[in-house]
Amino acid sequence: MPLKVVVIGGVAAGPKAAAKIMRLDPTAEVTLLEKGQFISFAGCGLPYYVSGVVKEQKDLMSTPIGVRRDPAFFQKVKNVKVLTETEALEIDRARKRIRARRNGAAEDFWLDYDKLVLATGARPVIPPVPNATLANILTLHSVADADAIKARLARNHGRDVVMIGGGLIGVETVEALVQCGCRVTVVERLPQILRMLDWEMARLVEQHMEAHGVQVMTHTEVQAFEGPGQVTGVVTNRGRLPADLVVLGIGVKPNVELARQAGLEIGPTGALRVDAGLRTSDPDIYAAGDCAESTDLITRQPCYVPMGSTANKQGRVAAINVCGGEDRFPGVLGSTVCQVFDFCVARTGLTEAAARQSGYAPVTVLVPDADRAHYMPTARPVILKLVVDERTRKLLGAQAVGPGAGDKRMDVAAMAITAGMTVDQLSKVDLCYAPPYSPALDNLILAANVARNKLDGLLHGLTASEVQQRLEARADFVLLDVRSPAEHQQERLPGSTFIPLGTLRARLDELPRDKEIVTFCKASLRGYEAARILQGAGFPNVRVMDGGLAAWPFAKLSG
Amino acid sequence: MPLKVVVIGGVAAGPKAAAKIMRLDPTAEVTLLEKGQFISFAGCGLPYYVSGVVKEQKDLMSTPIGVRRDPAFFQKVKNVKVLTETEALEIDRARKRIRARRNGAAEDFWLDYDKLVLATGARPVIPPVPNATLANILTLHSVADADAIKARLARNHGRDVVMIGGGLIGVETVEALVQCGCRVTVVERLPQILRMLDWEMARLVEQHMEAHGVQVMTHTEVQAFEGPGQVTGVVTNRGRLPADLVVLGIGVKPNVELARQAGLEIGPTGALRVDAGLRTSDPDIYAAGDCAESTDLITRQPCYVPMGSTANKQGRVAAINVCGGEDRFPGVLGSTVCQVFDFCVARTGLTEAAARQSGYAPVTVLVPDADRAHYMPTARPVILKLVVDERTRKLLGAQAVGPGAGDKRMDVAAMAITAGMTVDQLSKVDLCYAPPYSPALDNLILAANVARNKLDGLLHGLTASEVQQRLEARADFVLLDVRSPAEHQQERLPGSTFIPLGTLRARLDELPRDKEIVTFCKASLRGYEAARILQGAGFPNVRVMDGGLAAWPFAKLSG
Repeated sequence: MPLKVVVIGGVAAGPKAAAKIMRLDPTAEVTLLEKGQFISFAGCGLPYYVSGVVKEQKDLMSTPIGVRRDPAFFQKVKNVKVLTETEALEIDRARKRIRARRNGAAEDFWLDYDKLVLATGARPVIPPVPNATLANILTLHSVADADAIKARLARNHGRDVVMIGGGLIGVETVEALVQCGCRVTVVERLPQILRMLDWEMARLVEQHMEAHGVQVMTHTEVQAFEGPGQVTGVVTNRGRLPADLVVLGIGVKPNVELARQAGLEIGPTGALRVDAGLRTSDPDIYAAGDCAESTDLITRQPCYVPMGSTANKQGRVAAINVCGGEDRFPGVLGSTVCQVFDFCVARTGLTEAAARQSGYAPVTVLVPDADRAHYMPTARPVILKLVVDERTRKLLGAQAVGPGAGDKRMDVAAMAITAGMTVDQLSKVDLCYAPPYSPALDNLILAANVARNKLDGLLHGLTASEVQQRLEARADFVLLDVRSPAEHQQERLPGSTFIPLGTLRARLDELPRDKEIVTFCKASLRGYEAARILQGAGFPNVRVMDGGLAAWPFAKLSG
Repeated sequence: MPLKVVVIGGVAAGPKAAAKIMRLDPTAEVTLLEKGQFISFAGCGLPYYVSGVVKEQKDLMSTPIGVRRDPAFFQKVKNVKVLTETEALEIDRARKRIRARRNGAAEDFWLDYDKLVLATGARPVIPPVPNATLANILTLHSVADADAIKARLARNHGRDVVMIGGGLIGVETVEALVQCGCRVTVVERLPQILRMLDWEMARLVEQHMEAHGVQVMTHTEVQAFEGPGQVTGVVTNRGRLPADLVVLGIGVKPNVELARQAGLEIGPTGALRVDAGLRTSDPDIYAAGDCAESTDLITRQPCYVPMGSTANKQGRVAAINVCGGEDRFPGVLGSTVCQVFDFCVARTGLTEAAARQSGYAPVTVLVPDADRAHYMPTARPVILKLVVDERTRKLLGAQAVGPGAGDKRMDVAAMAITAGMTVDQLSKVDLCYAPPYSPALDNLILAANVARNKLDGLLHGLTASEVQQRLEARADFVLLDVRSPAEHQQERLPGSTFIPLGTLRARLDELPRDKEIVTFCKASLRGYEAARILQGAGFPNVRVMDGGLAAWPFAKLSG
């Protein structure tokens, strides 16, 4: 008897599982149900399709050599039977069968299964406010969504667009909208956009978006949409915003209704609970991709981090286990990257905020540097933040913001976290070095060394926010700028004292020994050098401002 | 009593150690001796200075904000006393002092030390053949070397340059020479350039260099240089090559004469033997950088891999231990990257050849793919090779060749090797994904999955060399091209049978069941799919050609 498998959901995890099952067991009979029109499309590519970077719809659903991954392709090449525009309506676990209906068909039909793979994905969250169903209030989750936005943009070129939500999909779409000539406002309920980052890193991204003409409104709650018929405005707690088009980017929630009705266990995150083999509470039913819960590799807690990369990996694991193998999906780190204009914005592991919430005592560093040898014309700055467990000295998380290649450093950091490396171990790893690719001490190794200096008590840091608080409170301390005269001329922090590093040893008498001294430079390496000089000369209370002027998230004085 | 430290050598490890010692112990007295004119210069940047990518000499020896790292800078900022053009002549270990002489000075002088750091570096190997000292036979090791080459190029623009040695410095310099308009020939004694790679990967680099007009002569031994006075030709076992300029790039050897005279232990590689704390056989003498031996993290054997990145890390470790701390330098993986025109060429860990030599039974995969979502216009191909231990399934090594971002994947691979990860673990790591940065399944994860398929007996590979041998021997086998008609039209392998993958299930009768069938496509993912179809249909002897047409290192038929 051939193994009968039904896969529900045709975007990422589903097709992956279906194809892999057929490669493992060529005698299997695999049927894939997809309620939409398209299968195996690159959902993560939708913002680039909206912006026109990806030219055609078919590019998102073709193989690298341009063959469309449609039902005929799956039948011919993979021997998988695909039913599109067909919705699964019921799982009859007792009789191991699925009730489904094709769009517009008069009757339901039943499909038997030996093993079932749920890859039902997720759907965008719609805010529970009045008029959320007005025309021109759109999400960006499906190819149809993208086409709808493109059609509106073609008509409303240069008009007002409000993006509700400053999450990942939000910021990726904002860039697409700006590139289409829209005036874009981002409305975010929280104190910052991009909760994947800590506040001060997100603030750098907000500044970058503002520099590209985007209005970013944090602490702003949507109260209603104004109509009639078509949206004309967004009412918030901070006033009304005109809007010809509203894009909802406040996140997604897993599609688990079918599973819930069948009595499958739902986890604390609201997604389908699965074991390491991706089995649900029914051992013949697997779940993979955006409908499934995962495990945070650091905290070991259930988490919900829908990602196309995870969906693909999980589809493969589910397939192996469906065919009687024993594969495991260990969990995720929440690794994320997005492009925001010419910034690469990335994160892996715990943010400082999440680390504190999980009970860690995190030590953090903020290290700006060029992403390759600084004398190479291709070098670009990137600011790294590391979150390190004070007790074990293990890396818990890392963040990168800037035009430099932060994606590379975050992938390496993800490996360090996965391996449970301390910053001491990380600071010695043998990464590839040549001037076109990295500095002699890679950014991540440099940051690990800064963290070691902090852990070893050599470097006492102070965050930009803490410095700003002292400035606002007119605290009696010395904010010591040790940069060069040319740099100081160009931009300064308000209330700072200026002594270039090269003259500091000769000018120690100018500084008070009874006050806190906070040193800084552009990146804070010279700031650290200055602090060591002062400490060596007996100054008792010296700190270095984390990240220097390069990572300063408040106003500066310039010119 | 302040700690007296002498550091010998002022390029990378020396200045790093000296500066770090002063930050750790501001009361220390550190003297750095450098026999050359310059200190703290970026030796790895010299090829880019020759090509003009780096505009000025001072760029190689300045801080990121343009302050020259000269003796005055080290005195003012670091409180390190630097003596340039001063050679250390003798280590008197009994009395813990150094005899040195300043260039042109009449007399030597003595310097006492409590701790000594040897960072004497390495020097280029000069081939032991007649006339190797003729004018215009140059190395590229110092700033003076680079200036000498630049001066020759200014006079000999467009003339014949012979590069002796196809190693790392060789290929980096070749690009600089071609960009200066020279006709360049690379002469390499071995069957391949770039021994950091396995043969078939190096061959792809050779082809790329040849496409840029470089003549690459492997299996070619230099027998003599022709003069008189100035070099006019290079005599090899494969004939005479005209030469207006010869650049020697056959590697470096460590400068250990001073240490050897002092009775310090030299390791089997010819470099200074050190323990994990970088102590030599004299516990008050440390060695760091290009003069020191290291440990291969995989084989645990002594190795000599001089690298600017390692020198910087080791300088820091030596400094910590000089100051009474306990830091360790665990060893290296031989991680290497270089830019060859628009190719990124990188390696970490053991090559297949080295793995065999070390007694491993390696399983290898060769996986070409786009370095980001294939529908993004910025996507570039990169070919990855993985070397995996068949017994433990651990990653032993990885190589990358192509215009895509191989450096990122090699850094991640270096982390996997350092952590002792199996390919099964590697295939699940949570790397950052977004279309502008990687495919949904990162290249390295895809390659790990291919390796798992091989280890699990699902995929039986055959290397391009083995296929070529069968073709040359006119073996009775089927070389099955399963690409699309358009691709087949464009270029083909000689003697191949053509059945597109989409039609294969319907045309199985056309294939003989009693012969070996070797499938391939562009990258070999469709080749694998085809092989699974054939195996599923009962064909007993099916293999997939590793790397497909994208990695084929021999001649193709085109048009």
